Amino acid sequence: MNRKNLIVGQSGGPTAVINSSLYGVVSEAMRQESIGRVYGMLNGIEGFLAGRFLDFKEAFGADELEKLKTTPGAYLGSCRYKLPEDLNDPVYPLLFRKFEELEIGYFFYIGGNDSMDTVSKLSRYAAKTGSNIRVIGEPKTIDNDLVLTDHTPGFGSAARYVASTVREITVDANVYETKSVTIIEIMGRHAGWLTAAGALARKHANDNPLLIYLPETAFDQEAFLAKIEAAFEKNPNVVVCVSEGIHDKDGTFICEYDNSVGTDSFGHKMLAGCGKYLENLVRNRLNVKARSVELNVSQRCSASMMSATDQKEAVLAGAFGVKAALKGETGKMVSYVRTSNLPYRMTLGLEDVNEICNKEKTVPLEWISQDGSDVTEDFFAYALPLIQGAVEIPLGSDGLPDFISRK
Amino acid sequence: MNRKNLIVGQSGGPTAVINSSLYGVVSEAMRQESIGRVYGMLNGIEGFLAGRFLDFKEAFGADELEKLKTTPGAYLGSCRYKLPEDLNDPVYPLLFRKFEELEIGYFFYIGGNDSMDTVSKLSRYAAKTGSNIRVIGEPKTIDNDLVLTDHTPGFGSAARYVASTVREITVDANVYETKSVTIIEIMGRHAGWLTAAGALARKHANDNPLLIYLPETAFDQEAFLAKIEAAFEKNPNVVVCVSEGIHDKDGTFICEYDNSVGTDSFGHKMLAGCGKYLENLVRNRLNVKARSVELNVSQRCSASMMSATDQKEAVLAGAFGVKAALKGETGKMVSYVRTSNLPYRMTLGLEDVNEICNKEKTVPLEWISQDGSDVTEDFFAYALPLIQGAVEIPLGSDGLPDFISRK
Repeated sequence: MNRKNLIVGQSGGPTAVINSSLYGVVSEAMRQESIGRVYGMLNGIEGFLAGRFLDFKEAFGADELEKLKTTPGAYLGSCRYKLPEDLNDPVYPLLFRKFEELEIGYFFYIGGNDSMDTVSKLSRYAAKTGSNIRVIGEPKTIDNDLVLTDHTPGFGSAARYVASTVREITVDANVYETKSVTIIEIMGRHAGWLTAAGALARKHANDNPLLIYLPETAFDQEAFLAKIEAAFEKNPNVVVCVSEGIHDKDGTFICEYDNSVGTDSFGHKMLAGCGKYLENLVRNRLNVKARSVELNVSQRCSASMMSATDQKEAVLAGAFGVKAALKGETGKMVSYVRTSNLPYRMTLGLEDVNEICNKEKTVPLEWISQDGSDVTEDFFAYALPLIQGAVEIPLGSDGLPDFISRK
Repeated sequence: MNRKNLIVGQSGGPTAVINSSLYGVVSEAMRQESIGRVYGMLNGIEGFLAGRFLDFKEAFGADELEKLKTTPGAYLGSCRYKLPEDLNDPVYPLLFRKFEELEIGYFFYIGGNDSMDTVSKLSRYAAKTGSNIRVIGEPKTIDNDLVLTDHTPGFGSAARYVASTVREITVDANVYETKSVTIIEIMGRHAGWLTAAGALARKHANDNPLLIYLPETAFDQEAFLAKIEAAFEKNPNVVVCVSEGIHDKDGTFICEYDNSVGTDSFGHKMLAGCGKYLENLVRNRLNVKARSVELNVSQRCSASMMSATDQKEAVLAGAFGVKAALKGETGKMVSYVRTSNLPYRMTLGLEDVNEICNKEKTVPLEWISQDGSDVTEDFFAYALPLIQGAVEIPLGSDGLPDFISRK
């Protein structure tokens, strides 16, 4: 009998829908006659090397699998392990021997840039050694920075979280009449996609957030202060979204400006984020009430604002990858191809993973306003479809979200 | 004709359900034959003194009023204005002259400690001058620190937000195998109710958050470090909840320990929170991965985790206050009286506002574990009923929560 087994792993930072991708792969693999067992690596390639994996049929009841779709985080656990550049490294034959023992025919890895690097290396090693294991990458990242795909699973939910939270913080900021500035620091070191999503919070022209700064352009703090002064003409409560990675024209990160904010009582350096720095800058220079909010890990782990579109697409991409592997594809990443904005339509495709790994897609400069303090209508047309639809998260007997976790 | 008008205002920091209280007052007042117009002060007593108010019948369509129940923040705007202690101050006759002009018979103020101080002063001034305006306080605070009431509107939703967010952050922390400590900083300067709600995130014994520190007891950083070391035996990923107001036995706030984290490039003092301080302490002393998350304003302004119980009770309390005022009550705050835990049952009551204002209810010491690093089962029995039930927030055409706001 020619049935081969499938193994899937998760890698890098988690998202709200990385388990939806997993659900897509696993449920499709279980449906396929020609696939035998479906295994999951625990803590990615690193845990697998240490012999840690599970069998989905043993680990899950039939209805339990559905719960993956509403559970954030990485069900299988994650890792940040980089395979050696040299394909002659002994780790490769070691890995492939383990694959052989488990009769693996299909290797799936769900992750971002670094994970696609793993997919690239394993598929190249397989080609080099004549192994017929098919290696497929499933995209994942809230940063939306993978090339050759319209967007990435995880971005829509994170963008929905950012947009609705910025709207709520704006409602909160509006209760007082006194002039105030609220700086919201959003994830994104090199790509501003998620910060740009803050713009979706606006309900009308001149609504907050009045200013948006991405790492794609250089940040000038004097121009920023002047912009805030001007924004007070529109609203006494000014809300500003900034990417954690904003930097000046010399490439110095704004969060590094406060290098004196550097010593705790042990003499160790402490770093506040750029939000905290700008809060102090505004308070000291403009003499107005200022506060900063760092949205932090909830951007990637909150299930409360999961986008139904994002969830659905992640499941479809997972299943699509399995069908592609069965057709003989390998060394590919599943990609999203947008065919229409209004109405929003997209199809799935495959791209050479070697063209994707270790590259970064940033927000096009044409989508950023001339003065670098806002995004254009193009961004709205791009991002709005991706945050559509609420997902009902099942509640447990304690009344809180009932996430599934490994025993 | 003897019909009098009612005026209502909101004061202090907003919550997820302060507009539900407003809905309760306004909808009940509109139902009552003996009440004429229903006015809302804009930005509380401060805005009213400046002549700013609205008429609910003019401002709202009939179905629009319902939207108050799913809109966080203070619809009428808020203020932090304290009336003078001296009832002979000219502001009092000025205010009451304005009340007279508008033929006000009923004054409602929705807020916390400071707002109850306003209710106390206005009711005492009315008594002193023989005015028959009836003055009623509607409780509101996420801090849950008002005395003479089982709990306060706003707490249940904030507690639900904290519990589910701590659960999500725990899911996020669990994806890696490497030892890590996540410090979650939660609102509460003197009362630890909200931080204690972090405990509700646990799904089983020895689940995260493994440690919880409230401002009701003294914090010792050496004991804290030892507790973390011990917690690693249970889980490599340790999640800790701390109140922003934790302090040592001498009363020094932990966030003041890093007084050297104090100068930005302008030489101005910068303060990080206690979470940031403890993150650095853990990293430097225990040599493990550490991060901190400040839940910040989303605790009070997020509608995504609104508690249906909290929302329903806030509406009931609003309506109850109107009926009490019509019966002749004045100088009272509406209170929650719990009659049973299992099943949870509560009724509404009235308490003398003079016994409430400027006092603070903290977590009973019997509900805190001996070593000050956890809460007892009593807290669970108390808090669990208050976070029950999800509320569906209507979505707008942009797919995001559709909050109502003043034109």
